[in-house]
Amino acid sequence: MPAILNPSLLILHHHHHHARLSTAVLSLRHRLNFSLFSHSRTSFRAYSTSSSSLSIESSANQKVRTGRSGSVSSPPVEYDNAEKIDVNPPKGTRDFPPEDMRLRNWLFQNFREVSKQFGFEEVDFPVLESEALYIRKAGEEIRDQLYCFEDRGNRRVALRPELTPSLARLVIQKGKSVSLPLKWFAIGQCWRYERMTRGRRREHYQWNMDIIGVPDVTAEAELISSIITFFKRIGLTASDVGFKISSRKVLQEVLRCYSVPENMFGRVCIIIDKIGKIPMDDIRKDLQSADMSDVAIEELLQVLSLKSLAKLEEKLGASGEALSDLKQLFSLAEKYGYSEWLQFDASIVRGLAYYTGIVFEGFDREGKLRAICGGGRYDRLLSTFGGDDLPACGFGFGDAVIVELLKERGLLPELNLQVENIVCSLDQELQGAASAVATILREKGQSVDLVLENKPLKWVFKRAARINARRLILVGNAEWQKGMVNVKTLSTGEQLEIKVNELE
Amino acid sequence: MPAILNPSLLILHHHHHHARLSTAVLSLRHRLNFSLFSHSRTSFRAYSTSSSSLSIESSANQKVRTGRSGSVSSPPVEYDNAEKIDVNPPKGTRDFPPEDMRLRNWLFQNFREVSKQFGFEEVDFPVLESEALYIRKAGEEIRDQLYCFEDRGNRRVALRPELTPSLARLVIQKGKSVSLPLKWFAIGQCWRYERMTRGRRREHYQWNMDIIGVPDVTAEAELISSIITFFKRIGLTASDVGFKISSRKVLQEVLRCYSVPENMFGRVCIIIDKIGKIPMDDIRKDLQSADMSDVAIEELLQVLSLKSLAKLEEKLGASGEALSDLKQLFSLAEKYGYSEWLQFDASIVRGLAYYTGIVFEGFDREGKLRAICGGGRYDRLLSTFGGDDLPACGFGFGDAVIVELLKERGLLPELNLQVENIVCSLDQELQGAASAVATILREKGQSVDLVLENKPLKWVFKRAARINARRLILVGNAEWQKGMVNVKTLSTGEQLEIKVNELE
Repeated sequence: MPAILNPSLLILHHHHHHARLSTAVLSLRHRLNFSLFSHSRTSFRAYSTSSSSLSIESSANQKVRTGRSGSVSSPPVEYDNAEKIDVNPPKGTRDFPPEDMRLRNWLFQNFREVSKQFGFEEVDFPVLESEALYIRKAGEEIRDQLYCFEDRGNRRVALRPELTPSLARLVIQKGKSVSLPLKWFAIGQCWRYERMTRGRRREHYQWNMDIIGVPDVTAEAELISSIITFFKRIGLTASDVGFKISSRKVLQEVLRCYSVPENMFGRVCIIIDKIGKIPMDDIRKDLQSADMSDVAIEELLQVLSLKSLAKLEEKLGASGEALSDLKQLFSLAEKYGYSEWLQFDASIVRGLAYYTGIVFEGFDREGKLRAICGGGRYDRLLSTFGGDDLPACGFGFGDAVIVELLKERGLLPELNLQVENIVCSLDQELQGAASAVATILREKGQSVDLVLENKPLKWVFKRAARINARRLILVGNAEWQKGMVNVKTLSTGEQLEIKVNELE
Repeated sequence: MPAILNPSLLILHHHHHHARLSTAVLSLRHRLNFSLFSHSRTSFRAYSTSSSSLSIESSANQKVRTGRSGSVSSPPVEYDNAEKIDVNPPKGTRDFPPEDMRLRNWLFQNFREVSKQFGFEEVDFPVLESEALYIRKAGEEIRDQLYCFEDRGNRRVALRPELTPSLARLVIQKGKSVSLPLKWFAIGQCWRYERMTRGRRREHYQWNMDIIGVPDVTAEAELISSIITFFKRIGLTASDVGFKISSRKVLQEVLRCYSVPENMFGRVCIIIDKIGKIPMDDIRKDLQSADMSDVAIEELLQVLSLKSLAKLEEKLGASGEALSDLKQLFSLAEKYGYSEWLQFDASIVRGLAYYTGIVFEGFDREGKLRAICGGGRYDRLLSTFGGDDLPACGFGFGDAVIVELLKERGLLPELNLQVENIVCSLDQELQGAASAVATILREKGQSVDLVLENKPLKWVFKRAARINARRLILVGNAEWQKGMVNVKTLSTGEQLEIKVNELE
């Protein structure tokens, strides 16, 4: 049935606010004067901006002071060299306007659903933690880039760079009140402070899954299975991405062989993680300063180049834990049915100090991007926080690289706003009636965009299209007096008069 | 049919890791030594703790430095007066263990679903913003408690105390690229820094809904409707909670009447918001310092005591905007069907400087709790950030008071972990087979807790009960050789052998 609009519905309604709205345009150059309470220690620097710059200012009468020690009655002090601030979010951070938020929600929803399919429970921790939680062995990139500061009570605090230390803290706090194994996941914002601008952000969101209390490699196998389940859900295959697998026990066995002190282990791992990022000469120098002989260094580098378990067995023998763990993992991968996603790569050590066993890293097969995710076993983390150790493993999966990859593969989902109904009165007198209709539909579980001003029908149709409404419901005088409204199905143009109490 | 377990399934499997796990208990008193790189400006103070205290320490060999300027090679400096840190989250912040996270997710899910029913789009902003965004008129509690600091690049930044300034920033940034009205919602963590401990937290989550571009009171009516929809969803009625409504234009008209300068308006509002919190003498003194005569003050206080629109009309006359806005809002409330939730109360002004028109506050009728939520119109906020003003209104709804209220009314939902299946192999050799079974079920959309170690059946049943599993699926040798597994429905005890490829 073709759409036949009731002619009475086609009258354009001019509204007293319409002109006001359309002239209320935003000028990015609009400025006022800015006065600030002077801070002796503080220098205001403009954020580097792309093109537009915006200043915040106050009128002469506005008494503006910083939040440090504000009170109502003390007089404001003028700050002379006030500079502009930007309407952009702080450097390295993001706003999430609706289109970006839809993508974030889609990603997080997939993280959540996979985690729940694997029986994991969601947890979270404060984004602000005591700095002491992140003070570990030096050398980790994550440590050097800690977003730390002193709070107003002179405590050293930090925006969390990762979630695992908080998890460990909570596990110790809970003590025996929780039954093992714990299977916990979290999705949280993590921060790092980089002095240089490399186009990298200072915050990202990270999905973590952790298993506490399982010493067997079955735990690592389960974690990798969950990531692969996630990859498959969002359309990635084993030809797009893979996992490089190794174990830190490989290094440990080499170090033991050459009598390198046990306490150098974490440090050596972090040096090795920098291979490919800094010159080999610097790597060798750093290893020397970690009490390694030249012979040991060359042997270590040779072992790190191995790409097959058979070759590793030739080097290390068949009896060590490194090899048996890795063999067990690859054997479980077969049973799970994800062997084709995995490859042994002895050069993988990961950049965190606390890993002790299996380590893994998700990568794109085209080799264009940084690691997609990474994880491993960290059986000795809890004791560094004063707890008794528990076997543990987990992974972190950021929200940045995966989105780059999906974009490149054309796999980003189309996520449009969709509101089921748009409800509009045809007469200012009927605004309340339109509210009543919207309420009825919402009580039946429908979503409704209620037009809150008297607008021309042309405007309403444009908005209906923008929000992908399925139906346009017009509340006009003639119909309303019969207890009816005009319901237009926008995909077909079909239009019906329906009793208000029969709306579904 | 009564449950008859196959006797072969009843053998208890003793596992080599079992003893290891059960002895790996957590001691909250366990300590190590802690060494820290010395900071000249830094004093470490212990967080006040309830009972247990925990220290983080490093072994003599662990080289620990702060993140300020860490690098691999420079030597660590010992810090002599190292004190303990706590396994509790920083003072005033929360962890979210699974049970608390389930409640948070339930709450947020209701926020989201209501917002979507009203056609709002979700947005978010950085939790860390430039401090300048919050530098407004002095006197606001939110300003005085700003969680601000200097970052490593000497920029003044703050953990956001509220979401509205970020929203305004984004709206200005987007400029004409967005079509009005915007209907945006956000759920974000907000921070405040209180020096005193009053049992109040330093962070909370806040649900915000904002309408940008609608000058009419229809926008406020829609916002209040959405909050009421939320209240109803979670089981609250008009006899549990209500809204106190006023308009700042009431004050404005009184101030104009007594020739109080326009620029004192925000300041007067904030003073008035403190009525009931600080002595009346101080209120009077503060109002005097805001250029108000004693006569004007007494008149103002009298107007503020009004609780009916009729009385207000007697005072202000029928012609002002204050009265017409309020009348329109109460008239719309009738059409929406939520009149019984509202009451006029001239004493409501809200504590934020930027409100300009209607203000409202959700309260519990027993009067035991602080405001549940609050909002209003802020038509002149954008120009304080250098943008052109747009008509705007919104509300903030915290996650603290509502939970207190639900607890008190016995309305907190029971939210238990629920994993549909627990899958367990009866033999360590069959661990891989159990993984395969778990994978099959997960591919069919089921959630599965896979037992990752060889555990006694008694343990497995206990875990099944804890996770509220519907089915226990046992992978035993005899069945597996026939391509079958043992499926036990836990509510009935019914037990069946099912072909693996027929599992649903």
